[in-house]
Amino acid sequence: MDKVYEDSLELHRKNHGKLEIKSKVPIETKEDLSLAYTPGVGAVSTEIGKNPSLAAEYTLKKNTVAIVSDGSAILGLGNLGPEAAIPVMEGKAVLFKRFADVDAFPICLATQDVEEIIETVKRIAPVFGGINLEDISAPRCFEIERRLQAELSIPVMHDDQHGTAVVVLAGLINALKLKGLDKNTARVVMSGAGAAGMAVTKLLLKYGFKDITVVDSKSAIYRGRTDLTDEKKELSGITNPRDIRGSLSEVIKGSDIFIGVSKAGIVSEEMIRSMNPKPIIFALSNPVPEIMPDIATKAGAFIVATGRSDFPNQINNVLAFPGIFRGALDNNIKQLNDEMFVLAAEGLAATVTEPNPQMILPSVFDKTISGTVAKAMRG
Amino acid sequence: MDKVYEDSLELHRKNHGKLEIKSKVPIETKEDLSLAYTPGVGAVSTEIGKNPSLAAEYTLKKNTVAIVSDGSAILGLGNLGPEAAIPVMEGKAVLFKRFADVDAFPICLATQDVEEIIETVKRIAPVFGGINLEDISAPRCFEIERRLQAELSIPVMHDDQHGTAVVVLAGLINALKLKGLDKNTARVVMSGAGAAGMAVTKLLLKYGFKDITVVDSKSAIYRGRTDLTDEKKELSGITNPRDIRGSLSEVIKGSDIFIGVSKAGIVSEEMIRSMNPKPIIFALSNPVPEIMPDIATKAGAFIVATGRSDFPNQINNVLAFPGIFRGALDNNIKQLNDEMFVLAAEGLAATVTEPNPQMILPSVFDKTISGTVAKAMRG
Repeated sequence: MDKVYEDSLELHRKNHGKLEIKSKVPIETKEDLSLAYTPGVGAVSTEIGKNPSLAAEYTLKKNTVAIVSDGSAILGLGNLGPEAAIPVMEGKAVLFKRFADVDAFPICLATQDVEEIIETVKRIAPVFGGINLEDISAPRCFEIERRLQAELSIPVMHDDQHGTAVVVLAGLINALKLKGLDKNTARVVMSGAGAAGMAVTKLLLKYGFKDITVVDSKSAIYRGRTDLTDEKKELSGITNPRDIRGSLSEVIKGSDIFIGVSKAGIVSEEMIRSMNPKPIIFALSNPVPEIMPDIATKAGAFIVATGRSDFPNQINNVLAFPGIFRGALDNNIKQLNDEMFVLAAEGLAATVTEPNPQMILPSVFDKTISGTVAKAMRG
Repeated sequence: MDKVYEDSLELHRKNHGKLEIKSKVPIETKEDLSLAYTPGVGAVSTEIGKNPSLAAEYTLKKNTVAIVSDGSAILGLGNLGPEAAIPVMEGKAVLFKRFADVDAFPICLATQDVEEIIETVKRIAPVFGGINLEDISAPRCFEIERRLQAELSIPVMHDDQHGTAVVVLAGLINALKLKGLDKNTARVVMSGAGAAGMAVTKLLLKYGFKDITVVDSKSAIYRGRTDLTDEKKELSGITNPRDIRGSLSEVIKGSDIFIGVSKAGIVSEEMIRSMNPKPIIFALSNPVPEIMPDIATKAGAFIVATGRSDFPNQINNVLAFPGIFRGALDNNIKQLNDEMFVLAAEGLAATVTEPNPQMILPSVFDKTISGTVAKAMRG
């Protein structure tokens, strides 16, 4: 890790970040200048002035997404502020371009107030064809996304929620197939009720899973638990059909699938053994998984996925978000929803023609992925 | 004009605007990904989290300027709103990159409220190394610039004011030299008291001109005129030393230099003849100058400059703003001021080694200009 740390600092210092803004048109002659700038550009402004929706055809809005963060939940590092968010958002923009030819620009906000964030994003929205929310802490992220979706007419997605959910569901679709498990009867334990846990749970329900129990840092979430936030209360009404109580080590007994997105949810060899035979383990906490793959396998796990690139089956958002926004921009989608995310997950799962327990998802370097995901979203 | 209109629309339609956002670093291998994105990028976020000022070295902030407009005064077209501003701001970004290798991104705001504009720019400032305000109507532009300069620690410049002023002063410096005129005694008439007129006047005073009379759409501005805005009142205290009254046609009599930046200030052949012999005429109203160059010359003008590329001596902001921001970014300037603008103008004027009445300014396509201007600002 030390070498990566030093090398990454050096890469960023040497290049002064990772993004540059370039012209798509030539500026070599007076004529070039008269078309790209004055007086010619006056024609474009005049036409857009008459019909503002033309901006989506005549300007960068057609292909440009804002990556918006307030720096409140940067990677697993916590609340480091907007400046510290810049390198992550630049990295994300690099991935958008590399994997889906989407132009993305980092917007890192000097405010962590929910109303101010909503207001600011709405004010800068004219230039953008979509908004990717990123690394904004829960539960603030829920309201920010909900409100912006309602109040803007361009797609808005909090990637930590839905990007993660799409990749998890895609992986699960192939895992179910390999194991011959039915989504209607599979018992799922979800560890973590933050942004990712919430979104994964809802997308799994949308896909058709019936038996999901969510465990937060205290215990299972069940109807009537008195210490629940609004979001968890909502979850308590749609999950845990067998009304299970207790801590993770109790809830996990007899389940088929474990999905962890929380540092708090450490899983032991014994807990794996207490699950139904040959369970599916998605230990997604980063950089340290809830249980290391070799230990999980030794304890009987059939398929193990993590968030890390140095193990098989990496659950990496980059498999989803570039294609989702490519699809939203190409298909002129004004608002993203769980139906589209299910379609995206199914499209992503189908890119692996012959899944096996070591490969339930495609390589992140497969450039065809985003196009497939984008097309799948048309339904 | 019709062909330029059609061709420009086609250029913008075909390319969907003019800007793209590209990676400066490779993303071809797992190692690339681990340095540009997770886990390596965590190192950069951690360091910036400890010391936010490092963002200016490790991120795009080092070389990136926001071009901010509310669409209230787009070119000469008026208040067409934020979407209509996008193609102009994209064009400006293209020029920034082409002429000074500055990365610039358009921010077009869905508000025209002064406080909201200030607040929004402050909130998005973490990502940017400078703010170029553009096409914001007077007098709102004055307060927005003043406040942002005071409240942000990155350079803020309203280009319609200071970019114009720098190029006008540069042209005048060479014109004075050619005519053998002294700034201390030259009589200057300034037609227009909007954003450009105000800034040109103040910069000329800073440079050392003593006798400037400003004329707005009604008459000369003089101490005690009762219908003046705050900005014009300020002007009345520092200009018009001989306390001249009356309309442009009266004020212009016996002057050496006419500078027009207002559609309202039409200049006749007769008015040129009423000036001192061989006057200097900067007829900068666009697209129709206050007087056409051939008519001004016929009436005795020695040097004529316009805003147009199809006549000699084009006063084009692109000679100034790329170099000014290049200089601000390279020299780590936190706040721009008139001293720096005078230095920039002197540097720009000096790029023309042998000025003549048909060439008081360099070609806009001379790629060395921005570097010279940037260096000049060091003083």
